[in-house]
Amino acid sequence: MTKQLHLGAFMRPVGIHTAWWRYPSAYADANFNLKHLVQFIQTLERGRFDAFFMADHLAVLNMSMDALKRSGTVTSFEPLTLLSALAMVTERIGLIATASTTFDEPFHIARRFASIDHISNGRAGWNIVTTANPDSALNFGRDDMMEHDARYDRAREFYDVVTGLWDSWADDAWIRDKESGIFFDTAKMHVLGHKGENLSVRGPLNIARPVQGWPVIVQAGASEAGRQLAAETAEVIFGSARTIEDGKRFYADVKGRMKAIGRNPDGLKILPGVLVVVGRTTEEARAKLALLDSLVHPESSLPNLSMRLGVDASKFDLDAPLPEIPETNASQSGRQTLVEMARRDNLTVRQLAQFVGGFGGLTMVGTPVEIADQMQAWLEQEASDGFNIMFHSVPEGLDDFVDMVVPELQSRGIFRREYEGVTLRDHLGLARPENRFFAGAAKAAE
Amino acid sequence: MTKQLHLGAFMRPVGIHTAWWRYPSAYADANFNLKHLVQFIQTLERGRFDAFFMADHLAVLNMSMDALKRSGTVTSFEPLTLLSALAMVTERIGLIATASTTFDEPFHIARRFASIDHISNGRAGWNIVTTANPDSALNFGRDDMMEHDARYDRAREFYDVVTGLWDSWADDAWIRDKESGIFFDTAKMHVLGHKGENLSVRGPLNIARPVQGWPVIVQAGASEAGRQLAAETAEVIFGSARTIEDGKRFYADVKGRMKAIGRNPDGLKILPGVLVVVGRTTEEARAKLALLDSLVHPESSLPNLSMRLGVDASKFDLDAPLPEIPETNASQSGRQTLVEMARRDNLTVRQLAQFVGGFGGLTMVGTPVEIADQMQAWLEQEASDGFNIMFHSVPEGLDDFVDMVVPELQSRGIFRREYEGVTLRDHLGLARPENRFFAGAAKAAE
Repeated sequence: MTKQLHLGAFMRPVGIHTAWWRYPSAYADANFNLKHLVQFIQTLERGRFDAFFMADHLAVLNMSMDALKRSGTVTSFEPLTLLSALAMVTERIGLIATASTTFDEPFHIARRFASIDHISNGRAGWNIVTTANPDSALNFGRDDMMEHDARYDRAREFYDVVTGLWDSWADDAWIRDKESGIFFDTAKMHVLGHKGENLSVRGPLNIARPVQGWPVIVQAGASEAGRQLAAETAEVIFGSARTIEDGKRFYADVKGRMKAIGRNPDGLKILPGVLVVVGRTTEEARAKLALLDSLVHPESSLPNLSMRLGVDASKFDLDAPLPEIPETNASQSGRQTLVEMARRDNLTVRQLAQFVGGFGGLTMVGTPVEIADQMQAWLEQEASDGFNIMFHSVPEGLDDFVDMVVPELQSRGIFRREYEGVTLRDHLGLARPENRFFAGAAKAAE
Repeated sequence: MTKQLHLGAFMRPVGIHTAWWRYPSAYADANFNLKHLVQFIQTLERGRFDAFFMADHLAVLNMSMDALKRSGTVTSFEPLTLLSALAMVTERIGLIATASTTFDEPFHIARRFASIDHISNGRAGWNIVTTANPDSALNFGRDDMMEHDARYDRAREFYDVVTGLWDSWADDAWIRDKESGIFFDTAKMHVLGHKGENLSVRGPLNIARPVQGWPVIVQAGASEAGRQLAAETAEVIFGSARTIEDGKRFYADVKGRMKAIGRNPDGLKILPGVLVVVGRTTEEARAKLALLDSLVHPESSLPNLSMRLGVDASKFDLDAPLPEIPETNASQSGRQTLVEMARRDNLTVRQLAQFVGGFGGLTMVGTPVEIADQMQAWLEQEASDGFNIMFHSVPEGLDDFVDMVVPELQSRGIFRREYEGVTLRDHLGLARPENRFFAGAAKAAE
C-alpha cells in the first residue's frame, strides 16, 4: 500500500493567522462558541482526519493592550473539558490536547487523559509541552521560569511517571464477581512508588488502564533536548519545518536518532504545521491570503515577535536589521528559526514582524491539485508523514479543505476514504504499548 | 409558594453503600460505564433533579488488599471530564464536581469550572474540599498532610483567588468588531495580581466570565472552620446530619452564622446526604436494605472505619468499646460524629465498623409516602432545604426514586414538575453574583 498521509487539524485557536477572525466570512467568535466547534469537528470527521488538535496557553499573554485587544483567542475553552464534550458528538476522530509538565501534576495529567481515553473509546492524545511562556509562571506562584534544561529534565521524569501510572492496572484486572464480592484481582494492580529528582508519586492511578494502553504521545519541541526527548518517547511530532528541505533534514535527524537507540522509526509520525489556503484557482487562493495579511494590524505584530524571540522587540529600530538576540528562557527552537531567517533574507525588524504577525510558518497556497502536489512531495521525499492543518479562517478554510483537498488526496490513494480502525492509534498505525508491569497482557494493536 | 425541596443526586460512586455493586439487580460496573452514567443522568433530569453530584478521591485508598479488592470504585472517571461529557447529553440538570484546594492550582480550577459552565450553558458547581485523606498527599509529592487549620487557611485564600479570576472579564467585554479589528474592550479586563500568604496568582483568567457569573459554590466541611467558611462563602452545603434534630441544630447554627455576618440565609441551601431505599411496602424496603447490608464483607468494614477515624482500627479489640481516639489530621467532622455515636449507643468496635461498612449516615427506608413524609418534615422544620440522594444501588434505586418518590413530592407541591429556569443557580434560587471589579454589569438573577 502507498505510504499514507496523516492529517491533524490545529484547532486552538481555530485559526493560526493573527487576523483569522477578521476575515469577511469568518465566525468571529468561533474560538469560543461550542456550536461552531461541534460543526467543525463533525466536518473534520467527515473528512476522515486523524485528529483534532488543541494547543494551549496558561495565561492571557502579557502584551501591550494595543496588541492584546486585537487577539481573537483571549477567551477559550479549557482543552480537556472541551475535548471531553466533543467526544460525545463524534465517533472516530482523535482528540489531542496540550498539557504542561511544568505547571501541572503527573497524577492529574495521567488521570484526565485516561478519563478522556475511556470516554472517547480510545481517541485521546497528550501533547507534552514544557511551557516556555513566562507569563504562565505568574499564574502559578512563580516569578521566574524554570531554565530550559531543567524544564526538560522535569518533562522526561514527568513522562515516566505518567506512563507508569497508566500502567497501574492490567487490562484484565477487573473481575466484578457479585458472588464472592471480589471486584478486582489484587495481583493485577501495580503501585508505582516513584521517587525521583523532581517528582515523588506513589500511585496506583484510580482509573483503569486507558483503552489505547497509553493515549498517543505528541511533542513539538525542536531544540536539541526536544528532539532527543521526541526520538525516545514521542509518537507524533508537531513539526515546525518551513520548507521541504528543512523538513527532510528534521525528519532524517529525528528518525536517525530513533534508529540509534533501537526504536522503529515507524512508531513516530512527523506532522509539520501548515497554513493552507485553498482556491478554485491559484489566483483566488493568493487573493485570499493577501486579504488575510492585509487585516493584520501593526499593533499585533511586534508583540508577537517579542514573544517568539523572548525579548522586547518594541525597542528595536524597525527599519534596521535584527540586532543580536541574547540567550533567554524562551522556546529555543522558535527563536532560532526566526533569527536564521532574518539573517539569511536580510530582513528588517519590520519585515520580520509582518511575517510573524500573520502566521510565519509553512504555508501552502493554491488549488486543491497544487496543495495535494506539495503534500505528496513531502510524503514521498520523507519530509513528513503528514501535516497538522491550520485553516486560514473558519468555517471557510476548513470546509474548503475537507470538500476540495481531501477528495484530491483520496483520489491519489494517499489518504483514507473511510476510517479502518476505531482508536487514534489505529488511525496513526501505532501499536498499543505493552504494560511494563504486566507484560503479555496488552492486546495486539492491529 | 410552599417552600421547595432541592434535590441533588450523589453519583460518585454511584452507590454510597459499600455493597452497592453486589446488589442482585445492580450494574456491577456502573461507576465506570459511560453508557450507564448517561442513562442515569437522563433519568435524573426526567425527575427534575437540581444537580448531579460527583465526589472525588485523589488516590486509590491505601487500605489492606483484603478490603481494597472489594471496592467497586477503584476505577472511576475523573469528575470534570465526565461532567463535561454528560453536559452534552442533558439540557437542564446541574453538574457539581469536587475539586481540591490542597492538591491543585487556583488558575486550573477556575478555568476548568468556567469552561464546564460555558459548555453546559450555566450548570456547573464546584464542591470545595481540602482533601483530608493522607493517601492523596503521596500522589502529589508530599509525605505528610497539611494540618487541618493550614488546609482551611489555604482553602479560604484559594476561594478568593478562584472567584477573583472568574471576575476577570466584564460580561459585556466582547466587541469582536471586524472593521476596527478590536476584539474586546480593554477597560473591561481585570488583572487580579493576587499575592497572599499561600498563593500568588497574576491573572486574568483566559476564559470569559462564567454564564452563572460564578459556578455554584458547594461545601461539606462540618468542623468549626468548615462551618464558618461555609457561612461566609458556600451556596450549597452537602450536610452530614444523621437525625432531624442534628439537622435542625446544624441548620440553625450555619444560618445563624450567616445572619451574624449580614448574609441572607436564603443564599445557602443545606442538603444533607441521605441513603434512600424505596419499596412498594415498608417491608419490601426494609428487606432491600437488609439484603444490601448482608452483602457487606467484614474485610471491607474495618478499613473504612480506620479511614473515617484517621487511625488504624484493625488493632482495636473488635468486641470492646471504642478506645480513645487521638487527634489527627483526618477530617474532624466525620470522626467526631462517629465517636459521639459509639459513646452514646455503647457500640463495640465491631458494631461501629458494621454501621460504617454499609453506609453509616442518614438513611430513609420505606414507601414513597413514608419517605416523602420524612423529607417534608425536614423541610418544614428547617432541618434542611432538600437532600443529596444516595441510591442503594443502580439503576434500581435511582429509577425507583424518580418513578415513585418524585411524583409523591410533586403532588405535595414541594418539588418542581418542570424546570423553570436554565442554570443551576435558577434551579436553586440563587442570585448571580455581581462582578466585584465591574459592578452593575451583572445580569439580574431573578
